[in-house]
Amino acid sequence: MGLPELSGLNLHSKWPAGPLNLITDVPGVKVGQVTLKDPVQDINTGVTVVLPHEGNIFRDKVMAGASIINGFGKSIGLIQLKELGTIETPIVMTNTLSIGTAFTSLTKYMLKQNPDIGVKTGTVNCLVTECNDGRLNDIRGLHIEEKHIIEAIVDAGTKFAEGAVGAGTGMCCLGLKGGIGSASRIIKADGKKYTVGALVMSNFGGAGNLVIGGKHYDTKEAGKDQGSIIILIATDLPLSERQLNRVSKRATIALARTGSYCGNGSGDIAIAFTTANRVPHYSKRKILEYKMFDDDSIDLVFESTVEAVEEAVISSLWHADSITGIRGKQAMGLQDFLKGSINEDDK
Amino acid sequence: MGLPELSGLNLHSKWPAGPLNLITDVPGVKVGQVTLKDPVQDINTGVTVVLPHEGNIFRDKVMAGASIINGFGKSIGLIQLKELGTIETPIVMTNTLSIGTAFTSLTKYMLKQNPDIGVKTGTVNCLVTECNDGRLNDIRGLHIEEKHIIEAIVDAGTKFAEGAVGAGTGMCCLGLKGGIGSASRIIKADGKKYTVGALVMSNFGGAGNLVIGGKHYDTKEAGKDQGSIIILIATDLPLSERQLNRVSKRATIALARTGSYCGNGSGDIAIAFTTANRVPHYSKRKILEYKMFDDDSIDLVFESTVEAVEEAVISSLWHADSITGIRGKQAMGLQDFLKGSINEDDK
Amino acid sequence: MGLPELSGLNLHSKWPAGPLNLITDVPGVKVGQVTLKDPVQDINTGVTVVLPHEGNIFRDKVMAGASIINGFGKSIGLIQLKELGTIETPIVMTNTLSIGTAFTSLTKYMLKQNPDIGVKTGTVNCLVTECNDGRLNDIRGLHIEEKHIIEAIVDAGTKFAEGAVGAGTGMCCLGLKGGIGSASRIIKADGKKYTVGALVMSNFGGAGNLVIGGKHYDTKEAGKDQGSIIILIATDLPLSERQLNRVSKRATIALARTGSYCGNGSGDIAIAFTTANRVPHYSKRKILEYKMFDDDSIDLVFESTVEAVEEAVISSLWHADSITGIRGKQAMGLQDFLKGSINEDDK
Amino acid sequence: MGLPELSGLNLHSKWPAGPLNLITDVPGVKVGQVTLKDPVQDINTGVTVVLPHEGNIFRDKVMAGASIINGFGKSIGLIQLKELGTIETPIVMTNTLSIGTAFTSLTKYMLKQNPDIGVKTGTVNCLVTECNDGRLNDIRGLHIEEKHIIEAIVDAGTKFAEGAVGAGTGMCCLGLKGGIGSASRIIKADGKKYTVGALVMSNFGGAGNLVIGGKHYDTKEAGKDQGSIIILIATDLPLSERQLNRVSKRATIALARTGSYCGNGSGDIAIAFTTANRVPHYSKRKILEYKMFDDDSIDLVFESTVEAVEEAVISSLWHADSITGIRGKQAMGLQDFLKGSINEDDK
Repeated sequence: MGLPELSGLNLHSKWPAGPLNLITDVPGVKVGQVTLKDPVQDINTGVTVVLPHEGNIFRDKVMAGASIINGFGKSIGLIQLKELGTIETPIVMTNTLSIGTAFTSLTKYMLKQNPDIGVKTGTVNCLVTECNDGRLNDIRGLHIEEKHIIEAIVDAGTKFAEGAVGAGTGMCCLGLKGGIGSASRIIKADGKKYTVGALVMSNFGGAGNLVIGGKHYDTKEAGKDQGSIIILIATDLPLSERQLNRVSKRATIALARTGSYCGNGSGDIAIAFTTANRVPHYSKRKILEYKMFDDDSIDLVFESTVEAVEEAVISSLWHADSITGIRGKQAMGLQDFLKGSINEDDK
Repeated sequence: MGLPELSGLNLHSKWPAGPLNLITDVPGVKVGQVTLKDPVQDINTGVTVVLPHEGNIFRDKVMAGASIINGFGKSIGLIQLKELGTIETPIVMTNTLSIGTAFTSLTKYMLKQNPDIGVKTGTVNCLVTECNDGRLNDIRGLHIEEKHIIEAIVDAGTKFAEGAVGAGTGMCCLGLKGGIGSASRIIKADGKKYTVGALVMSNFGGAGNLVIGGKHYDTKEAGKDQGSIIILIATDLPLSERQLNRVSKRATIALARTGSYCGNGSGDIAIAFTTANRVPHYSKRKILEYKMFDDDSIDLVFESTVEAVEEAVISSLWHADSITGIRGKQAMGLQDFLKGSINEDDK
Repeated sequence: MGLPELSGLNLHSKWPAGPLNLITDVPGVKVGQVTLKDPVQDINTGVTVVLPHEGNIFRDKVMAGASIINGFGKSIGLIQLKELGTIETPIVMTNTLSIGTAFTSLTKYMLKQNPDIGVKTGTVNCLVTECNDGRLNDIRGLHIEEKHIIEAIVDAGTKFAEGAVGAGTGMCCLGLKGGIGSASRIIKADGKKYTVGALVMSNFGGAGNLVIGGKHYDTKEAGKDQGSIIILIATDLPLSERQLNRVSKRATIALARTGSYCGNGSGDIAIAFTTANRVPHYSKRKILEYKMFDDDSIDLVFESTVEAVEEAVISSLWHADSITGIRGKQAMGLQDFLKGSINEDDK
Repeated sequence: MGLPELSGLNLHSKWPAGPLNLITDVPGVKVGQVTLKDPVQDINTGVTVVLPHEGNIFRDKVMAGASIINGFGKSIGLIQLKELGTIETPIVMTNTLSIGTAFTSLTKYMLKQNPDIGVKTGTVNCLVTECNDGRLNDIRGLHIEEKHIIEAIVDAGTKFAEGAVGAGTGMCCLGLKGGIGSASRIIKADGKKYTVGALVMSNFGGAGNLVIGGKHYDTKEAGKDQGSIIILIATDLPLSERQLNRVSKRATIALARTGSYCGNGSGDIAIAFTTANRVPHYSKRKILEYKMFDDDSIDLVFESTVEAVEEAVISSLWHADSITGIRGKQAMGLQDFLKGSINEDDK
């Protein structure tokens, strides 16, 4: 739902949000999540899955691009995404050490859906992303199992929770509790409305660096920087692979607006896809038609994307409750923090 | 001199500036400029040159990295800089259409200094960067001549003017008058002080997007976005080529802090070099020694670089006088703008 | 005309050549050249220009990609080509130190053709490439002048000479005389014929490493490696920007087939464009239509491109006459070499 | 052992092989393998592991670089390798769909060796590479288990088999049986001897395209192109991260020499590391000392690397026995093929 108006936090928006103010405002996009919380076992982790459309993604791929903003990350599937300009599986998010399990689980799901893989055709490029939730979660315990991945895929829908849920359950961000956040923007081109949606798993940023709408907040009591962010950008506006790479790169600007300087230890990865250009796995014709946006007007897409990603980050903080995790480590939710804090700029 | 304290503009600095608050606080770095202004001929352009050190740069190269933040630019020399990780000439800045003249002039200078080039050894990789000053300058007139390039090199020193001078004479930025800006930061490592310095030629950003220290300023009367920025980062801290690439990439964060979203038409190029790792053109030994910084502590360099570049951008605006250029186009200096403006956040 | 059958050199071709066996078999592509030879002044240099189509290239750009195979080169314009995926000027080739003059001359030509540049619209991205002909040419003399660039553009046509002509006049390659070479291949897709054409300026490779059709030739008496190669690939098959990048990268394979290992000092640059996807400078509609090739069949394009580039390299050697250049340095043409040599494999 | 002299296959070598003619000629490097073959279950797969040195790799990382020659691949860990320039785990090779299991297994091994991971320090960047052995192996069966990964690591030594063993058990290459191959070269710098070693998992190339020492072999009866190759390059010569990237890129040349044109469906990945530059996980000092090679002499490293990789590819074919795999698919070993074939060039 993005950042509610009553939050009182002003992000200087130029474009209106979509009806849900979520990435699922882009028609066809769905999100599913499984949250694992067990205080006895120090488990605070989970899975978030984004489905690019409702059909068979392997046979009907979406055109995509990506940017390695800072490469301290272990995501799987980006190399092929960049080479071929497509996404052909659901996009899975989870904790860093569980991406092997997530990959195997997603592989099994894809094999079941597509009996031709590995027989009549080649393999499949499973897209699995991660952040390190080891500050609050027993990450060494490898608690993600196959059933969690499958459940998140099967249960995906257009409405979903933000904050400390799904893969965001154990994440920390800018000295506060991070997690899953989402937002959207409506733009117009050639007289038609299009949607730009963002979903982030926020786990980046140094304590003391939080910025919201240009205001600095002093979060430094909350701990040292341990980072990463995964940023997904979806749109129904037709963009070329090159343009999707460019759009994904603008996520850096949104990170900066919230206080990041792309720290050394942060795996900052942005992925952008359009549902408007589809690439068939099997094609009878060799010459295919697609659409792109006039680069001379693409600032519209760049700037609205920055807004959606910025709001998604702040929304991930806003919706996250305060939590006590492994080894007694605490992370405060933004709402709790704001109740107790004095805006540094007002001092 | 960076942004004077009396400016009243607060950029949330964590590190102190060097004695000059200029890139020339890095020992050995020098800057030279030639300003061309002729209201009758509509000339508002010039040349700015940065010398990485005082010796023969071709024979004693500095280690370097670079980032193409947005590639709508025509700079010469970056391909080889990225391949070999070195800078071997003075770095020239001028207007877009004059880079050919600048290249030829710099080539002649290098040939004169180095009679071995093209005879006993190969060629030389002249580094020439540019922004488009066509909004205020008769850029079609190609007014830069060889003598201007040579003069800027020969006159280089540690003190230099900022604002609408040198290559920055005709530049516009964020709806105001842009130009040359510089700043520095002092950091400590292993008990020693090191300097990070930045120099920018600012010509980027949409009118209405200016942000200073988190505050938005409404500059929208001043014209439409036409962009680019060249960002030079110098340090005497030893960094590897890979690290210099990473440091240069962080300039994006500084651009975001000042209101950029890396617009389509902006050639946003960042170049970083260290004077602490030298690469000889002729070496008797094949195995060479160099130093790098522990990546686990490199956030210190990243964040202080962002600060220096951010201040350099705002300083380029602060020092620029209001101007009327070709076709009667006007660009207001930041100081004039601030006198007449109401902070948008205060409305 | 590529490599004549009577050459006796077998390159294992799978696809037939076009009618001219030149890059100009791609409809609309033209090539112009100016050769400068003056034994008294030790001048052996020139200009070669490729026009992507017959109309206004700035207003009707061709889609393009490029690969920096080895970045020891100074070409101008590649950064923007990669960012925007287009070529908007004739492609100029000349010697390394003359690219400044070539840039300025091409700029003047473009300004004259397009009075809107720098006034109603931004600047223009002039594409200028180079190799170092300093072994045979007085490269320090900077003998290329504006008139040579303009003449090469104006005189461009579909028939042109290969070997030691134009920008290739003073080039050396694999221990022999290099220069300009070209070839083409005809391929079929969806029942239609398409052409892949290549033009190279060959100046790369170590003496003693020449390979033709898998056979090694002992050219080691001819001198030490001093290198670079510019490779242009043109097609009328519709390819996306991403695909054009991929196609350009395959030029590396062709270099390997002729004996290159991409030496340190070689600026190996490949540029690919398609005349089948045009990008307008001014567009009323924001959403534009393009075509791409099915990646699952793109090996057809990759392998035929490798063939065309390989033959273009060998053709550049075949057509080059033996020459004596500056400081008495000699370079033998391939035909002269073959008359006097024994195939190393036959020993 | 590389290609035995009695093979009669001449690869035009300039540098001598090391004593084993294996990657393990580089001091400290070890290789372990587990081969899974079960004709009843159609299993033809396995694991190959390369240990960069004998100590704790996480605490004492080796400097590294990599090249994505063609990105149709799913390898894990390359993003961070490129960002930080290090390898911090054993390098695991296996089949495409088993990389999730391999990742989880390697993670568990690393967690056991390093109790600080995920507690006192961050996570670990497990390096897992793959090719698709689905032509001969029941790849959908996911037959690799944790115990196989651990066994391969534990059993690693300096002597190891080549051909259809370990991760190479089910691979096909250039229309023949592919697999694991290795070779080495001895070079000299500053009066000292250094070793360049290569190990490949070969699974690339179109049938009918095989080239050995410049000679074409007609393998077209053996099946269609289904591809990928993983190329590991090790050396004890000190190289910088930038130089290791450059060296890894030269693997493309070796692929071309054996008949590859880097087909669309081939994940061609090259990774290079040096044991001579170590990066500590925990460092008291922030400024660290390293060595690099003079770029002006690096052709020595480039060309000897190409030789080692070329021989490793041919050696992987030479040592592979003919095999019948899943669905009755056959792949002929090179030795069997040579007995029955007529050299195409001799026809």
